[in-house]
Amino acid sequence: MCELLGMNANVPTDIRFSFAALARRGGGTGPHRDGWGIAFYEGRGARTFHDPQPSAHSEIARLLRDYPLKSEIVIAHVRRANRGKVALENTHPFTREIWGRAFTFAHNGQLKGVKKWPLGLYQPIGATDSEHAFCWLAGQLRERFASLPAPAVLDRALEALCLELARLGVFNVLLSEGRSLYAFCTKTLFYIVRKAPFGVATLVDEDLRIDFSQVTTPDDRVAVIASNPLTRDEVWSQLPLGRLSVFRGGVLV
Amino acid sequence: MCELLGMNANVPTDIRFSFAALARRGGGTGPHRDGWGIAFYEGRGARTFHDPQPSAHSEIARLLRDYPLKSEIVIAHVRRANRGKVALENTHPFTREIWGRAFTFAHNGQLKGVKKWPLGLYQPIGATDSEHAFCWLAGQLRERFASLPAPAVLDRALEALCLELARLGVFNVLLSEGRSLYAFCTKTLFYIVRKAPFGVATLVDEDLRIDFSQVTTPDDRVAVIASNPLTRDEVWSQLPLGRLSVFRGGVLV
Repeated sequence: MCELLGMNANVPTDIRFSFAALARRGGGTGPHRDGWGIAFYEGRGARTFHDPQPSAHSEIARLLRDYPLKSEIVIAHVRRANRGKVALENTHPFTREIWGRAFTFAHNGQLKGVKKWPLGLYQPIGATDSEHAFCWLAGQLRERFASLPAPAVLDRALEALCLELARLGVFNVLLSEGRSLYAFCTKTLFYIVRKAPFGVATLVDEDLRIDFSQVTTPDDRVAVIASNPLTRDEVWSQLPLGRLSVFRGGVLV
Repeated sequence: MCELLGMNANVPTDIRFSFAALARRGGGTGPHRDGWGIAFYEGRGARTFHDPQPSAHSEIARLLRDYPLKSEIVIAHVRRANRGKVALENTHPFTREIWGRAFTFAHNGQLKGVKKWPLGLYQPIGATDSEHAFCWLAGQLRERFASLPAPAVLDRALEALCLELARLGVFNVLLSEGRSLYAFCTKTLFYIVRKAPFGVATLVDEDLRIDFSQVTTPDDRVAVIASNPLTRDEVWSQLPLGRLSVFRGGVLV
């Protein structure tokens, strides 16, 4: 199993506090030592960083912990390999251009038999079940719509496709096209929405504490989604199983 | 105009010495202050780093100058914007998956009217002429071949497509699918192939000197392609104009 981290905010927001916890789990406090990756949306583009090294010992992860990249949508993943060797091309999140938008996908779980599903326009570069599933989903979207649909239409289409994939096994997923952050969950994903009045939070994984009231304005809203709660003094909720959760502007819509 | 840097070697090779020169030109010794990007192939995957900040002042560029990422194929670009605002999505190199391979493209020049050329499967995410040209080229390749062709077949197809694009203006390009490094040039691109006996080289742009004999083995071959010679004590050659140069295994084939 792998660990996922997502963030969606209504203002460009610094992810370093949460990323510190996730990065520690990649070979430090957790067993997910088979690489890690992160995507930061910025305008229509997405910056991605990938490393097949354990994140707890990765130079690039250390840079990101020190460097205040701000973004409205972030998707991160630390990997414990089950299908596909430890290699850059098997490292999530995966990215494809669909209708001129950068789509990003990270998955935790196994999908039995997904590699037998025929693909269309998109082909995997690596050897994971996850990338195959993403290519299938991307191909289905292109077949259904000639251009980027309105958010509500895309929401429904993605939910239907996620339900099909979820029949094959564990399908905890974070996905974005730069407008919304989508989460689909068949096992466990937790989330929290931070908004005013902001308080203090302490990471579960290391002795790191932050007072959000010092780094926010009263209108900020920041949703964080993670495989396990990242802080010990806040209340995290479970996302509903078997349906698509949609975050836009820092709100679960 | 922008500056390009490419490397192709027969063993995973450290690009830091050459990247130091290029990065300085991005807002330091050169006027190319509108962002920069680099792609490193590793197996079938490609790591990419992009930053709309000038490379001379970029934290990520500093990391890469300190961090010995080794690769057999590298493509880098520093940008001076002419079409498309300074933004992440307009920052080269651009990447698309074609036939399950990561294709990477960086361009220097302007292509008058290219945005009127109809696109097929691939659509630009940003607003540059360059990404439009790349999407056109990628769509043409997909129409011509159902799967990745043999190297010699791909070489010929790419040359024909580059010649079509070059009719629109200045088209200095580096392109790779992870197997070969392609360079097409209508104005100026220089290259050097370093092999045994290796000597000493000094950068044009800063007081940095390297003795390649200390960091290589006798069988190593490393080709470097750049918009301008990067060192002052080696002999750089111009690439032929108006045809595709193909580098494989550190050799101009």
